[in-house]
Amino acid sequence: MENLKSLTRLIDSLTKLPSVGKKSAERMAYAMLEMDEEDLKEFSNAVKDLKAKITRCPICGNYTESDLCSICKDDTRDESLIMVVSYPKDIIAIEKSESFHGKYHVLGGIISPSKGKTIEELNIASLIKRIESGNVKEIILATNPNVDGETTALYLARKLEPYGLNVTRLAYGLPIGGVLDYADALTLSKALEGRRKI
Amino acid sequence: MENLKSLTRLIDSLTKLPSVGKKSAERMAYAMLEMDEEDLKEFSNAVKDLKAKITRCPICGNYTESDLCSICKDDTRDESLIMVVSYPKDIIAIEKSESFHGKYHVLGGIISPSKGKTIEELNIASLIKRIESGNVKEIILATNPNVDGETTALYLARKLEPYGLNVTRLAYGLPIGGVLDYADALTLSKALEGRRKI
Repeated sequence: MENLKSLTRLIDSLTKLPSVGKKSAERMAYAMLEMDEEDLKEFSNAVKDLKAKITRCPICGNYTESDLCSICKDDTRDESLIMVVSYPKDIIAIEKSESFHGKYHVLGGIISPSKGKTIEELNIASLIKRIESGNVKEIILATNPNVDGETTALYLARKLEPYGLNVTRLAYGLPIGGVLDYADALTLSKALEGRRKI
Repeated sequence: MENLKSLTRLIDSLTKLPSVGKKSAERMAYAMLEMDEEDLKEFSNAVKDLKAKITRCPICGNYTESDLCSICKDDTRDESLIMVVSYPKDIIAIEKSESFHGKYHVLGGIISPSKGKTIEELNIASLIKRIESGNVKEIILATNPNVDGETTALYLARKLEPYGLNVTRLAYGLPIGGVLDYADALTLSKALEGRRKI
């Protein structure tokens, strides 16, 4: 079978997307060959211009196309409560839950010795600055519930100790809609540990 | 939450890919925001240049970056046997099975009244031309085993009748590695109908 260079090149780019393997990338590339020129041009430009207008909010590190992100601009949100997340996409998830009305701070990563990500690369200095200049009362550490996320949360909790804030972590437990006997042992033991009176 | 236009635009393009819904497209777009400029530029160019060099083989309609596709160029393949497929990607699937050594003909679609695809839009004239000018003995109709695929195969079979060729269709039956009680009733009835002595 002829090796179509233009196709292979596109497949290589597509496999860099999350949860896209070789086979999915092939299917996508072939589908793109059947798209009309207009759609392909728009796709190419959308990729090219993606980062051109999007910057980081200088306060919290979230993505924005404006000077400040919409959450930092929003005066109705509680400034005394900051949720620390790893990535901007985590903000989307929390916002969808419509249960949080404070502000955010994006670390831009997670301490990961295995991936060579160190503390220095995270936006911690700007978080300290916010704490020092504002009336922050509580910091919720919402890094992922895994080893790297725990390490980062633990490090931050210690780092924030001198400021006498209320430093909290999201609860562990059974996911809603889940099935008890599908839950792993660690989640179950955490759910038991964190049990509440009803 | 701020509506990032550059991101929404990319998400719109990504959802045009096969099996990419809103949620996957969002995840992909956010992952792309974290990619470095070099990778994004390469991605954008790969999309832009995709169709620039790829054309259709004038004989069979397969994709090629050359004057003829590699299969039509290959003298070792049996010219008297032509497998008719709907799309070039079907050729990839058949070639992977390493069980076919004839030539191909790509229809470029399938008769689909529901999608407004008519007979006139398929590369049938060029197939007839190949039959008239060559020493073709058998035509294997390898359109998909569904309603539209059947309609197309039936139409072609009738159209090819005057040429006195051996016109065949791929066998129906149980997929290898499948489980009998997961097979649908129609597949089972076809498998029974096509049973063979062992």
